[in-house]
Amino acid sequence: MSAAKPSNGGILRTVQVLLAERSYPIQLGTDILTEVGPEVARCAPSGRAVVVTVPPVGRRYAPTVLRSLRGAGLRVHRLEVPDGDASKNLRQLKGLYDALLDCGADRGTAVVALGGGVVGDLAGYAAASFLRGLPFVQIPTTVLAMVDASIGGKVAVNLPQGKNLVGAFHQPEFVWIDIATLRSLPPRQRSAGFAEMVKVAAIWDLELFERLERDAEGLLELDPALLLPALERACAIKAEVVSRDERESDLRMLLNFGHTLGHAVEKLSRYRGVLHGEAVSMGMVAAARRSEALELSPRGTADRLAALLVRLKLPIELPDFPRKAYLEALRVDKKKRASHIRYVVLKGIGRAETLPLEPGEIAPRAARRSRRPRRA
Amino acid sequence: MSAAKPSNGGILRTVQVLLAERSYPIQLGTDILTEVGPEVARCAPSGRAVVVTVPPVGRRYAPTVLRSLRGAGLRVHRLEVPDGDASKNLRQLKGLYDALLDCGADRGTAVVALGGGVVGDLAGYAAASFLRGLPFVQIPTTVLAMVDASIGGKVAVNLPQGKNLVGAFHQPEFVWIDIATLRSLPPRQRSAGFAEMVKVAAIWDLELFERLERDAEGLLELDPALLLPALERACAIKAEVVSRDERESDLRMLLNFGHTLGHAVEKLSRYRGVLHGEAVSMGMVAAARRSEALELSPRGTADRLAALLVRLKLPIELPDFPRKAYLEALRVDKKKRASHIRYVVLKGIGRAETLPLEPGEIAPRAARRSRRPRRA
Repeated sequence: MSAAKPSNGGILRTVQVLLAERSYPIQLGTDILTEVGPEVARCAPSGRAVVVTVPPVGRRYAPTVLRSLRGAGLRVHRLEVPDGDASKNLRQLKGLYDALLDCGADRGTAVVALGGGVVGDLAGYAAASFLRGLPFVQIPTTVLAMVDASIGGKVAVNLPQGKNLVGAFHQPEFVWIDIATLRSLPPRQRSAGFAEMVKVAAIWDLELFERLERDAEGLLELDPALLLPALERACAIKAEVVSRDERESDLRMLLNFGHTLGHAVEKLSRYRGVLHGEAVSMGMVAAARRSEALELSPRGTADRLAALLVRLKLPIELPDFPRKAYLEALRVDKKKRASHIRYVVLKGIGRAETLPLEPGEIAPRAARRSRRPRRA
Repeated sequence: MSAAKPSNGGILRTVQVLLAERSYPIQLGTDILTEVGPEVARCAPSGRAVVVTVPPVGRRYAPTVLRSLRGAGLRVHRLEVPDGDASKNLRQLKGLYDALLDCGADRGTAVVALGGGVVGDLAGYAAASFLRGLPFVQIPTTVLAMVDASIGGKVAVNLPQGKNLVGAFHQPEFVWIDIATLRSLPPRQRSAGFAEMVKVAAIWDLELFERLERDAEGLLELDPALLLPALERACAIKAEVVSRDERESDLRMLLNFGHTLGHAVEKLSRYRGVLHGEAVSMGMVAAARRSEALELSPRGTADRLAALLVRLKLPIELPDFPRKAYLEALRVDKKKRASHIRYVVLKGIGRAETLPLEPGEIAPRAARRSRRPRRA
């Protein structure tokens, strides 16, 4: 890894998420885990904090976080949940409730999620529902969670029948992003995280897209001088979308770009072998190609998007499941109302809209897909 | 029963609950179940409604409600959950999620709770959390649920460790109160419901209290000419408190009057043999006596309250559990922060405030309690 280590830690950037009900800051920096304690203390009137994490992340970073919390005068508890999307279930949730009761957690106890999207979603939903809501802090340690999962207040668990079927909107008190935590992330997960960054650029911000095109390799190497401003801009875009449309309606729907087919791919793969960001990458390219076929976006848009994703070491071709399987997976998409799906299409790089399409207009046709000429 | 049957059904009264986020109406009337369909249809964009009820209520009233919903063009599903507070648990909740999935419920499907507080809480929490929130309608069929449970958006399930430990704030689209449904309520449950009506009068409204004193026997007999205006006023008070203080803080805390010891009694009785309203009745009298002992309210306040509750056929003396048991039960009260409990005390009939007290200052002393002279 060639990224220069910054000479000193500190909060370098702040993005404010403005909501009708309550606003909160996203703090971004390098080596700032040591400084999170006083911030958590401020939102834990009972002087108690429960840190929820997963084993690999907890082993590396929980000691630093716990030390910082204790240094701020908090009584702290550390809970671990198994890693992986499969642990975002009702049984683990029940286990968290029991553990919160054992800790003596009350409404003034802060729940701190330290880890990726899974721990953020699971701990966040426990925080949302236990005693009708505890203060919640996010310390995301994956690119994906930094850009996506920690902004917008969406927390959830899965049911056997599907992902994120039970959940809430529960805004964190603040989000604490330390990009130094990314150094331990395996390369494939790093790449997957950048898919969400490409997504927000593709639907909203040509300038960020151009920045990603310029810096792709440096970003993959986590160069702080490149990564911090890119992350800040990506967070600011997502924050802007969420601020303008707190409840999931028209505007926020755009954040589903690439997710309709992405979810189908994850589902058909039984959530094994494909990472969320990889599935979204494939889904975005498919949606961009559909946008071009419908003459909604200029020719070349899909190939430009695909080229960037390839440089970020992301897969762009949908797996070869039977068309019937795709149709079936799309029909149970929970965002669907009646028979149409509000599909997110590109109007060009940096601009998107939704279009009501039938599952049959979205599901890939295997033959056509593999014969399609590539220009990039 | 001597109450005159009203000559015609219809919506006689409306109370508006004004919230920052979204306001909703409480409609009160006699024999108005037949008219609920079009109202539900308005808040079910997918044209689908799921009615959740308990067997005895469902047998009597679900056919009327389902007919009205079908008449309004809705596809309807009827789900039943077992009656009793014990069914407000995670297992039943999971069952509701499964049933909602089986029905094909999406975000435009309305969940209609038909029954008392248990079904309102359980179905309400399912509606709050399934797909992060479905439109929710309350049709309360007990006095208790009409006055209390259906206003304020608090929905929850129990954990084995305690009541209402998992929940949300999820405001209904509207509340539909048909007092004709009370005719089938056993006398003891009727009385228990009036305890919550006395509560809101005691903390907030001398005029309503005087009305209850004037009409106690007629109310117990469900005379619509007496019951409708009393219910309307009680709902309006609770709506006012909730409107002014949507999240549970200072003002809303007053609604806990009688509930601190009431919950302890329920817990020590293992939720058997004592109805919630009965426990609240005992708790209110104990709190009123404490208020007098602390010289916060005029002498005679507690006896005046006790006299009304007795006329409404409610118990007023706390059961004779050991003081140590009361202390233990009070210490796990989830509303507690640190060692103090914010105890609701009366400043007189119609006025209340909270006072931070130690459990030891709240728990009854058996000897003193039984020797206390009564003046009413």
